[in-house]
Amino acid sequence: MPPFAKKRFLSVAALGEEGLIAAIRRWLGPASPPAPFGIGDDCAVLASLGMRPLATVDPVIYGRHFGDGDPAWAVGAKLLKRNLSDIAAMGGRPVAAVVALMLDSRTSLRWLEQFHRGLAACAKTHRVSIVGGDIARNDGALAASLTLIGASGRRVLTRGGARIGDSIYVTGVLGGSVRSGHHLAFTPRLAQGAWLGGRPEVRAMIDVSDGLAKDLRSLAPEGAQAAVFAAALPRRRGASVASALGEGEDYELAFAVRANADQPAFERAWRRAFPKLRLSRIGTFAPEGDAVAGALRLADFSGYEHFRR
Amino acid sequence: MPPFAKKRFLSVAALGEEGLIAAIRRWLGPASPPAPFGIGDDCAVLASLGMRPLATVDPVIYGRHFGDGDPAWAVGAKLLKRNLSDIAAMGGRPVAAVVALMLDSRTSLRWLEQFHRGLAACAKTHRVSIVGGDIARNDGALAASLTLIGASGRRVLTRGGARIGDSIYVTGVLGGSVRSGHHLAFTPRLAQGAWLGGRPEVRAMIDVSDGLAKDLRSLAPEGAQAAVFAAALPRRRGASVASALGEGEDYELAFAVRANADQPAFERAWRRAFPKLRLSRIGTFAPEGDAVAGALRLADFSGYEHFRR
Repeated sequence: MPPFAKKRFLSVAALGEEGLIAAIRRWLGPASPPAPFGIGDDCAVLASLGMRPLATVDPVIYGRHFGDGDPAWAVGAKLLKRNLSDIAAMGGRPVAAVVALMLDSRTSLRWLEQFHRGLAACAKTHRVSIVGGDIARNDGALAASLTLIGASGRRVLTRGGARIGDSIYVTGVLGGSVRSGHHLAFTPRLAQGAWLGGRPEVRAMIDVSDGLAKDLRSLAPEGAQAAVFAAALPRRRGASVASALGEGEDYELAFAVRANADQPAFERAWRRAFPKLRLSRIGTFAPEGDAVAGALRLADFSGYEHFRR
Repeated sequence: MPPFAKKRFLSVAALGEEGLIAAIRRWLGPASPPAPFGIGDDCAVLASLGMRPLATVDPVIYGRHFGDGDPAWAVGAKLLKRNLSDIAAMGGRPVAAVVALMLDSRTSLRWLEQFHRGLAACAKTHRVSIVGGDIARNDGALAASLTLIGASGRRVLTRGGARIGDSIYVTGVLGGSVRSGHHLAFTPRLAQGAWLGGRPEVRAMIDVSDGLAKDLRSLAPEGAQAAVFAAALPRRRGASVASALGEGEDYELAFAVRANADQPAFERAWRRAFPKLRLSRIGTFAPEGDAVAGALRLADFSGYEHFRR
C-alpha cells in the first residue's frame, strides 16, 4: 500500500496536529491507556518495571524497512516486533512503548490508520501499552521510531558471557527474509527468550537481525571465532548459505550453551517446551586463528552494514 | 554549523556502521556506560526506576528545530533538554536516554561529533546515561529522536487536576525564544519541577513548549478557560504578547495553585528556593463562556500547530 496520498484532503496535511493526535488515539484504541498512563501528558507514567528495566529502540523507514508494496498494518506491527525481538534476546518481558513519527505531509490518512491499527493489534497480542509519542512533519521522509521499555526476567541474558568451546544454537530457519515476507510476518521469540533466560546452561544470547555472520561476531568471546558448519545451518526453503549468513532480518535467537552441558537433555527440554520451533546446533566458539576443518569463513559474509552497501 | 559535508571522506558515508558506532561511543565518553548498561547489547539494562517510571520522547529535525547557523553541540544539548523539560513538568528525575538517529549520508563527521559532545555534556550535567540507540541512513533527512526515561518524585504532577478558581503561574519569561537563542540555551526547570511537586497547593503542571495559549488549554479543567492578563505576562525583552502566547519553545513551567492557598507564603517560599528565577501569577481558571474583564482572548493565539503553519 503506497503511503502517500495524491490528494491533500486524504493526507495528514488535512488535519491539524491536535486532530491527528485524536485520530491516532482512536486508531490505537485500548492499546493506549488514558493519560497520564498513556498519550496526553508531558510524560507517560508507567507501572513499576522491577529492579532491572530494559530499554531498546528501532525504527521503520520508508524505502529501507518497508515500501509501497507492504501492507501498512504489517509495517506498524513490524515496528513493534523489531523491538520485541530485542527484548526477547535479553530474556525480558515487554511493558510499554513510545513512538516518534516523522511524517511527510503527503502521508495518506488511510495508510496511517492501517499502520496504527497494525501496531495496536500487535501491542495487544504482546500486552504492550503505547504510552506516548511525538509527531513531526518532515517532507521527504516517512519514518517511525519506537522505544520499547521492558522488565527483565530472573536473569538478564546479554551478548557477553560465551566462552571458547561453547556450542552455538539458533532458533527457526534463516535467510530469504525479505523475499519470503518473513521480515513482516515473523513472530518475535519472546516465550523462547524468557525460557532460555531460565536455563543455566545458556550463557549469552543475541537476536539475529543484522545477519548471523555479523551477529555471531557480537556473541563471540574475546579471542574467539564462531566455527559454523554449512550443513548444520537451518535455511529457509530456497535460501542460500550466503543469504542465511548475511541477509539479516531473521529475528531468530542465537545463543551459547556451555561446553559441559548435557546437550541431549537440553534439546529434549526445548522440544517439550517448543515442539513446533526448530532448534539447531550450528557450531562452536573456537580460538581465533585456529583453522577449523569444514567450518565456514564467516568473515566473507559481512552481514548488514547500514552505511556501506 | 552546516551539518552536511561537501566531501565524502568527511561524511558519515566514509565510515561503516560499526566504525560509526565506535566513534559515537568515543564522543559520548562516560555519558554512555559499558554494555549491557549502555550501548552495545540488544537492550540496555537500567537501574531501578521505582514504582512509577516516566517516559517521554521528542526529536530535533534539521530545518525545523535547528538549521545551518546553529552550533552542533547546542543541537545535541537541545535534543536532551527538550525531553528534560517534560520530565520537569511531571516533577520527576531523569535517569536514562536512548537516541534514534536518522542520518543523511552527507552528514559531516565533525558536525556529528560536536552534536554528540554537546549531548554528552548536557547528560553529564543532569546525570543522565545515554544507554542505547539506533542509526539509520535516510538521504534527505537529518533527525534525532530521544526517549528519556525517568523516575517520579513523591508525587506525579500531571496536566490534570486544576479547578475553576485556581491561580495560574508561570516561571521565567516568555516569547522571542528562537530570535533570542533561548530555544538552544535554555535550562530545563528540573529543580523547580521537583520542588513544585512537593508543594501541596500545586495541583497541575505543564511545560510551555507549544506556546502558552495552547498549553494552557491542556492545563484547563473541564468546562474552564484560562483568564490571563496581558500586564501580568512575563515577556522576554522585545517580545510581543502574541509571541509570548503563541511562539512556543519557552521551556518554562506553567502550573495551577489552588484558590484557597496562602499565595504570599507560597511566593515567599519560591523566592527562598529560587531567588533568581522569576515567578508570575498571570491569571486564573474561569468558567468557560464567562467574559472576564480585561483578560486576553487566548483563542486568538493558537500556539504551535505542526501541520498547519
